[in-house]
Amino acid sequence: MNKSLTILVNCTDEKGLIYKITRVLYENGLNIVKNKEFVDEANNRFFMRTETEGEADQKVLLEALTRELPPNSRIEVVPDRKKKLVILATKENHCLGDLLMRNHFNEWNAEISAVISNYDLLKDFTERFNLPYHHIPADALSREEHEQLLISTIRNYEPDYIVLARYMRILTPGFVHQYKGKIINIHHSFLPAFIGAQPYRQAYERGVKIIGATAHFVNDHLDEGPIICQNVIPVDHTLNASEMAKAGKGVEKMVLAQALKLVLEDKVMLSGNKTVIF
Amino acid sequence: MNKSLTILVNCTDEKGLIYKITRVLYENGLNIVKNKEFVDEANNRFFMRTETEGEADQKVLLEALTRELPPNSRIEVVPDRKKKLVILATKENHCLGDLLMRNHFNEWNAEISAVISNYDLLKDFTERFNLPYHHIPADALSREEHEQLLISTIRNYEPDYIVLARYMRILTPGFVHQYKGKIINIHHSFLPAFIGAQPYRQAYERGVKIIGATAHFVNDHLDEGPIICQNVIPVDHTLNASEMAKAGKGVEKMVLAQALKLVLEDKVMLSGNKTVIF
Amino acid sequence: MNKSLTILVNCTDEKGLIYKITRVLYENGLNIVKNKEFVDEANNRFFMRTETEGEADQKVLLEALTRELPPNSRIEVVPDRKKKLVILATKENHCLGDLLMRNHFNEWNAEISAVISNYDLLKDFTERFNLPYHHIPADALSREEHEQLLISTIRNYEPDYIVLARYMRILTPGFVHQYKGKIINIHHSFLPAFIGAQPYRQAYERGVKIIGATAHFVNDHLDEGPIICQNVIPVDHTLNASEMAKAGKGVEKMVLAQALKLVLEDKVMLSGNKTVIF
Amino acid sequence: MNKSLTILVNCTDEKGLIYKITRVLYENGLNIVKNKEFVDEANNRFFMRTETEGEADQKVLLEALTRELPPNSRIEVVPDRKKKLVILATKENHCLGDLLMRNHFNEWNAEISAVISNYDLLKDFTERFNLPYHHIPADALSREEHEQLLISTIRNYEPDYIVLARYMRILTPGFVHQYKGKIINIHHSFLPAFIGAQPYRQAYERGVKIIGATAHFVNDHLDEGPIICQNVIPVDHTLNASEMAKAGKGVEKMVLAQALKLVLEDKVMLSGNKTVIF
Repeated sequence: MNKSLTILVNCTDEKGLIYKITRVLYENGLNIVKNKEFVDEANNRFFMRTETEGEADQKVLLEALTRELPPNSRIEVVPDRKKKLVILATKENHCLGDLLMRNHFNEWNAEISAVISNYDLLKDFTERFNLPYHHIPADALSREEHEQLLISTIRNYEPDYIVLARYMRILTPGFVHQYKGKIINIHHSFLPAFIGAQPYRQAYERGVKIIGATAHFVNDHLDEGPIICQNVIPVDHTLNASEMAKAGKGVEKMVLAQALKLVLEDKVMLSGNKTVIF
Repeated sequence: MNKSLTILVNCTDEKGLIYKITRVLYENGLNIVKNKEFVDEANNRFFMRTETEGEADQKVLLEALTRELPPNSRIEVVPDRKKKLVILATKENHCLGDLLMRNHFNEWNAEISAVISNYDLLKDFTERFNLPYHHIPADALSREEHEQLLISTIRNYEPDYIVLARYMRILTPGFVHQYKGKIINIHHSFLPAFIGAQPYRQAYERGVKIIGATAHFVNDHLDEGPIICQNVIPVDHTLNASEMAKAGKGVEKMVLAQALKLVLEDKVMLSGNKTVIF
Repeated sequence: MNKSLTILVNCTDEKGLIYKITRVLYENGLNIVKNKEFVDEANNRFFMRTETEGEADQKVLLEALTRELPPNSRIEVVPDRKKKLVILATKENHCLGDLLMRNHFNEWNAEISAVISNYDLLKDFTERFNLPYHHIPADALSREEHEQLLISTIRNYEPDYIVLARYMRILTPGFVHQYKGKIINIHHSFLPAFIGAQPYRQAYERGVKIIGATAHFVNDHLDEGPIICQNVIPVDHTLNASEMAKAGKGVEKMVLAQALKLVLEDKVMLSGNKTVIF
Repeated sequence: MNKSLTILVNCTDEKGLIYKITRVLYENGLNIVKNKEFVDEANNRFFMRTETEGEADQKVLLEALTRELPPNSRIEVVPDRKKKLVILATKENHCLGDLLMRNHFNEWNAEISAVISNYDLLKDFTERFNLPYHHIPADALSREEHEQLLISTIRNYEPDYIVLARYMRILTPGFVHQYKGKIINIHHSFLPAFIGAQPYRQAYERGVKIIGATAHFVNDHLDEGPIICQNVIPVDHTLNASEMAKAGKGVEKMVLAQALKLVLEDKVMLSGNKTVIF
């Protein structure tokens, strides 16, 4: 017996929460393997993530926790299961390639179901890994029409998360709402610097001495969603914009992989427009 | 009312520990502000650090926790109080200077009681901050005789921790045992690389591309005590040994300051020859 | 004989420049100790910094170089001399303290002539290092009137550079022009993110996972001058804005010190609104 | 016309070297695109790397430079050409995968000719990229016998460099001498810490707070060859040895890729047991 459940709690802060939650787990025969909590004092919110081992009925557990915790608490009891991903890409190969390789070698408790792109450039590469590649061109289509085609393809795969692996088109609020909290993007700058198009060009023009990458959930505002991971590398005056773009590929794929790992392990909780990373 | 206590537990792992500990805190009217735990599966040990607010009798709390937890548990109930430090230095000024400045501006919940050195080079500088400076030369003395003089001076200050701010003499096991778990050293390499004398010289000879610093507790074996913090900076072929030594000063003082901050906030627990950092 | 001169060239790029410059140096009996060059292809500019040893007449050298290089070249022949600094501060002590300590221990080929502040908070500290502290309050003065007082004090010291060590007032274009290319500021964010007031508050609100610091020359546009150095540290959801401000102090003082070191060693050349760092 | 030659010089230091070298280039009609030099004062050696554009006869250039420079100078005139690589691997896929992907997308001025392994685990993966995979088992063979098989396979490809992408067998001096200065290894620690087998296990036992990777040329002494690149990532007490191994994969593949890029661009010169990186 080694079944594992992860309990996620997001509720109003009050005295005794850890005690009450761990008592429920104890009384249901669960052993705590990892436990992390955070009190957001500014907003009086309590966050907790608890990894357990032992067998328990998910529904019973959820009901018991609901009884103990304040009204309107958000409580999740998450079983350990393989999550499904759909990747959206455009022309760049480095983030997609890194994800396909990790998928191929079963590095994560996840599987990529399909790759979708508005170009066919990455088709041959994707198919070498025996994965479906959907080429959905955007030409002559309105943004909404194109997204309708995306959605009808995505729907077939019922993904847990949609990963934008340098997908270079802006998504409409309609699309974003359809997959609220489930779209992860990698932006090629350390946000909030260099929002929008051509961040390396912007970085070059500004003469910065570091460039970076940001993985974030997508919301209605371009490049303004909750940040999951960020990292940077040093640069200097000898790099022009396109050399910065090349140099940045390594940090982009690393940051995206780190963020995805955290999300797939249920270690990322949303707190307004920010993330709590456990 | 905002009295704060920190509870530190290090015991054999078993089911229900978080529940049992937090129940005691709850029943004693304490609110948990921060809680971190770690299960060392390889050694079947459980570690927990809990910051609380609310008034409680330290002794009552300790007894209640002792009743709940396995035999031979190490339990500490630590009140929030200013800790006292004695600094040992030799000739280098950068780590000492950084500590004196932070002390002068009350950056930490600690106070430096005195500086002791086998040289008088840093006397004028130390006294500018109105701190006692004890010049205890080692010339013509055996290692033990010199340390006896150190000990009789240190004794007057009853420090919580002794900080070796680039103190360049090796301490005997006798001295180390006297202050077991209370001596913090900054070593000017990323240990275990370049143990012992002249690590920058060694780094230069080896042609490494990173140099670093390690803050650690001192034990009987030179540069082998439990590591608290480490960091590195990039270097290249243009730096000779003495330029590396200069370049490394910044990371040395930063790593020492980070380690001391963690220790002073009771966030460092010992686990064999390693540290658990909460 | 070990006199050292540094030659700085910034001119239109053309074939043979390194050959022509090094020929002049060779014919004047100088040995090259260090040589770095950079061709900015986008703007067709050539930059070179050459450290030499050997005795030569500065004026003769400058004339010979001027003859060899394209018209309108900017050529400097810089002798190795102690540079003078005036520090402007407000209330924060960490950057000032770090600079005063480095000055006290003669870490650089520079000397701090005086500290000027609109508050008297750092007076006692500064005077411990036997340095003049000018308290010039800004109350009831227009920005221009206050700056006139600053200027008349600064004038007495004829500084090579003015260092803004967390000086929290915005300088007028009039002041900036008076000291064009000679004012170095440390901004407490990785620019261009979080320009202006309270960057740590902005960083906290945005939920970033890295914070940083930027040392730059001051120009007419707030926080938009040429960047010299930048660095970052990781943060997470557990830090509020004031904890980020505390955590950022270390990187601020390190970045400012790195930038100053480069400037004092004549390793920073201006290229439009960017820097070339040799 | 945009032919490019790179000139590499390693000679005894003396006055006028840059002048003499650049005069030859100038007189041969070459334009210098990039120029870097380094004087190793401790050993009185001069290193220079010059990228040029323009057409020139390689042999004529080499002879002219040889006439100008001190006897026994090592001078190379390197044309810009695609280099050939043979990869040796064992069971780990992350470094190999990263290299194959970069090769597939023509990221470098190089091509992987073949992959050789003592296991057949990575055969399917390699062949997806249409590259030959040679499975040469070591079972029941002496070290020398196995290496003879390797050599006869490698010989068919005449590679410029042999890359050990986590190849887990120790090479004999015989093999190393055959490919002197041409074998690049990635070691999974920040050398010289944790030489030899199971560096992550060693790192875990020592309780370090950073782990890293080192790319180096292979010489006769295990993990003691000239270091090209190193980098680290932070770790903490929560990671056991196998989790450190997983966490370290990202930095391993990044460091190996950085080192290879430098080598392929002729930016790495050997200086005794160290490297000069231009």
